[in-house]
Amino acid sequence: MKKLTHLNEQGRAKMVDISEKQETVRTAHAISSILVSKEVYEKITSSQVKKGDVLSVAQVAGIMAAKRTADIIPMCHPIALKAVDIQFEWKCDENKYELMIHSFVKTKGSTGVEMEALTAASVCALTVYDMCKAIDKGMVIGQTYLMEKTGGKSGDFRREL
Amino acid sequence: MKKLTHLNEQGRAKMVDISEKQETVRTAHAISSILVSKEVYEKITSSQVKKGDVLSVAQVAGIMAAKRTADIIPMCHPIALKAVDIQFEWKCDENKYELMIHSFVKTKGSTGVEMEALTAASVCALTVYDMCKAIDKGMVIGQTYLMEKTGGKSGDFRREL
Amino acid sequence: MKKLTHLNEQGRAKMVDISEKQETVRTAHAISSILVSKEVYEKITSSQVKKGDVLSVAQVAGIMAAKRTADIIPMCHPIALKAVDIQFEWKCDENKYELMIHSFVKTKGSTGVEMEALTAASVCALTVYDMCKAIDKGMVIGQTYLMEKTGGKSGDFRREL
Amino acid sequence: MKKLTHLNEQGRAKMVDISEKQETVRTAHAISSILVSKEVYEKITSSQVKKGDVLSVAQVAGIMAAKRTADIIPMCHPIALKAVDIQFEWKCDENKYELMIHSFVKTKGSTGVEMEALTAASVCALTVYDMCKAIDKGMVIGQTYLMEKTGGKSGDFRREL
Amino acid sequence: MKKLTHLNEQGRAKMVDISEKQETVRTAHAISSILVSKEVYEKITSSQVKKGDVLSVAQVAGIMAAKRTADIIPMCHPIALKAVDIQFEWKCDENKYELMIHSFVKTKGSTGVEMEALTAASVCALTVYDMCKAIDKGMVIGQTYLMEKTGGKSGDFRREL
Amino acid sequence: MKKLTHLNEQGRAKMVDISEKQETVRTAHAISSILVSKEVYEKITSSQVKKGDVLSVAQVAGIMAAKRTADIIPMCHPIALKAVDIQFEWKCDENKYELMIHSFVKTKGSTGVEMEALTAASVCALTVYDMCKAIDKGMVIGQTYLMEKTGGKSGDFRREL
Repeated sequence: MKKLTHLNEQGRAKMVDISEKQETVRTAHAISSILVSKEVYEKITSSQVKKGDVLSVAQVAGIMAAKRTADIIPMCHPIALKAVDIQFEWKCDENKYELMIHSFVKTKGSTGVEMEALTAASVCALTVYDMCKAIDKGMVIGQTYLMEKTGGKSGDFRREL
Repeated sequence: MKKLTHLNEQGRAKMVDISEKQETVRTAHAISSILVSKEVYEKITSSQVKKGDVLSVAQVAGIMAAKRTADIIPMCHPIALKAVDIQFEWKCDENKYELMIHSFVKTKGSTGVEMEALTAASVCALTVYDMCKAIDKGMVIGQTYLMEKTGGKSGDFRREL
Repeated sequence: MKKLTHLNEQGRAKMVDISEKQETVRTAHAISSILVSKEVYEKITSSQVKKGDVLSVAQVAGIMAAKRTADIIPMCHPIALKAVDIQFEWKCDENKYELMIHSFVKTKGSTGVEMEALTAASVCALTVYDMCKAIDKGMVIGQTYLMEKTGGKSGDFRREL
Repeated sequence: MKKLTHLNEQGRAKMVDISEKQETVRTAHAISSILVSKEVYEKITSSQVKKGDVLSVAQVAGIMAAKRTADIIPMCHPIALKAVDIQFEWKCDENKYELMIHSFVKTKGSTGVEMEALTAASVCALTVYDMCKAIDKGMVIGQTYLMEKTGGKSGDFRREL
Repeated sequence: MKKLTHLNEQGRAKMVDISEKQETVRTAHAISSILVSKEVYEKITSSQVKKGDVLSVAQVAGIMAAKRTADIIPMCHPIALKAVDIQFEWKCDENKYELMIHSFVKTKGSTGVEMEALTAASVCALTVYDMCKAIDKGMVIGQTYLMEKTGGKSGDFRREL
Repeated sequence: MKKLTHLNEQGRAKMVDISEKQETVRTAHAISSILVSKEVYEKITSSQVKKGDVLSVAQVAGIMAAKRTADIIPMCHPIALKAVDIQFEWKCDENKYELMIHSFVKTKGSTGVEMEALTAASVCALTVYDMCKAIDKGMVIGQTYLMEKTGGKSGDFRREL
């Protein structure tokens, strides 16, 4: 039966031993989103024609956060990330304006990059909130989850929607 | 009309000038959550009687992240936080196990602490995911939002549910 | 006669005592630049019409570095920055393409923000180099210097050109 | 009766509220040491006449660590340090070579700087170990403790030896 | 004869070249401790039955510090840690209450992890001090030293007690 | 034709995929400088006979910055540096006092270390400025550029002077 591998024999948290795990290519794709008002939606999308828009800043923040994941999440192993990409997609529907945030992380290492992808997506959403909160503090960061992972002994994972 | 205050005259992001704002006590309360399976729920709650449980680690991570918010969110001002607290509450309901995460942040400074509270709650949820993902990668981080803020010129905010 | 205030009585470096200095508004304006080839110039300027261009990333990096100055420069005091802005200007002249980088930093504190402005400008230039080095490794970061500072007991400074 | 102020009502750690505490000048003096072999002693002291010696590096490390204390110690409040100084003193006695490390930290803020002084002294000792461990891994970092603190409501403290 | 490998030809510190060293499994076990009063001992041990106790927080701090060692100790090489564990043991003896702190670090890399283990143990002790200092500022962090290391060309080391 | 590899298909920045690149030894040599007044020159060089001089601190700062490059430059990949060295050389000439700063960085990895070398040299120059600015704020950081790189698929590069 599966158990919480992060606990040591004293019942405390530890960083689990991955020294025996193989170095293989591993990828993860995580999703987050932010629900914004029509006014915020229009500000963000109209500024996209300019340089330095909201989404650029958010995406830089997400990439930098991915690299700092092991410094933010206590039991995460430090991993040399080989690629990080963040992409945006608007889902608009009758006064509902949702910015979908997709993060893609890749490494060649001995553990997976799920946390890096989730952290990148979360920080990206938080940054959009930060840059638009002067207009509306009621924005809501939507569900954040792992969409897919590949590589590693535990096998691939793909979320069923 | 409100505008994106984070943009400079070249249309690029900037860290807005708060040197004229007054130093007052400001608080923020943010909420996040994580939806887990029954198995994860049982692991977390049974380990709570032990030292070093999942929620302790998550909560330390959240507090440390609150302090590092200005280092993670590009346009956030550095603020000397005066208090950070994180509290948990389970909402269980017919095979739905949701851990509610409440973060409370306080400062005496010239800008608000909404981002610090949101970042603390997000990182707390991410850490729970990290420590339980060996059991189930399908956990979902729920909506993350500002519940309340007080202090500052823009006035108080309280989310209507 | 002026002396190196950073040395203690054992002749070693120290972080000098500023606890008696007054909290006043202080600003600094620093300049750096990067000399690029025509090809790089064209890539950067043509991508400016798109979102997420080179200069956006560089500018986010500069702002984040300004906030982290006391963590990078050993004897710098931590200062709560109140505003950071970075602006760009091209100086093109017969096959010479120079991107001028202006950083503006402001605080209300007990020491100046010269180092924050210089660090922001330097990191901004380094980031442009990073993002364009696949095209040309021969780019040169130009002179980096303090243009102006105001506030503080040592008085204002303005570089004569 | 005194209690562990770091625990919240759920029995978990929190960063205690200091928003009501007064901003006053506070100082702390901490001590650590490292016991080294005669060989290491001679290497360190002979290189002191050169630039870039072991103690210079250790002392820079200690000063930088003082500034990063709130990032390393989970429940520490971020404090804008106003002065940090580190001084060394050899206590040699019949084949016992002990480098005494004194750290002095000062702030003007709403909480004390004991942790900053202790962290600076510890990191200073660790850095000496790091730079000399190629010669001898048997070095021992001696007792680390607070020698004195001044300022703040809890009053002054001075260790009796 | 052994020499200070950290010095370059100008007599200054450098990060020594390890590019030719083999990637092998390396472990280190370091020890620190903290001497506390009876009152502090009782607070810590009685809160151990609760979630979020002092030792949990200290241990998370130690693990996070291990990962950040190369960022804290100037000449340390960055190493991808593969496992970190921290364990506690009380040694009580006639009004002497000493918490022994054992850190275990493992990597598969081209240099050892002694500094990571020592840093983890030190930061763990500092965090216990921080969380209990409201009760007693007279606590003393005991000797901190390397107990054992394995792997690497310089061979194994085991401290004789 | 070469293109800005840092842009994703949405025209935004990304951290490019290097998971297919081979792990080989790679080196980089970068140069920066700082032009100082005669007075600053004399202070720096006279303090060189003492321990803890300006250049020691600058060099420690440069080495630490090299290790933190991926945390400062947004699209840089994290790389485990294997060696960092910084050397100084004065070029004095009729009231012109220029401190040349040479940084040498080495890794065994899947991408080059140009940015690490450039960042080390820049931060080194910034630190000299910081430690001497009480004497003269008019110092100028000179051109900063890559002198040489070896290793990697794109081949060697050597600047022609």
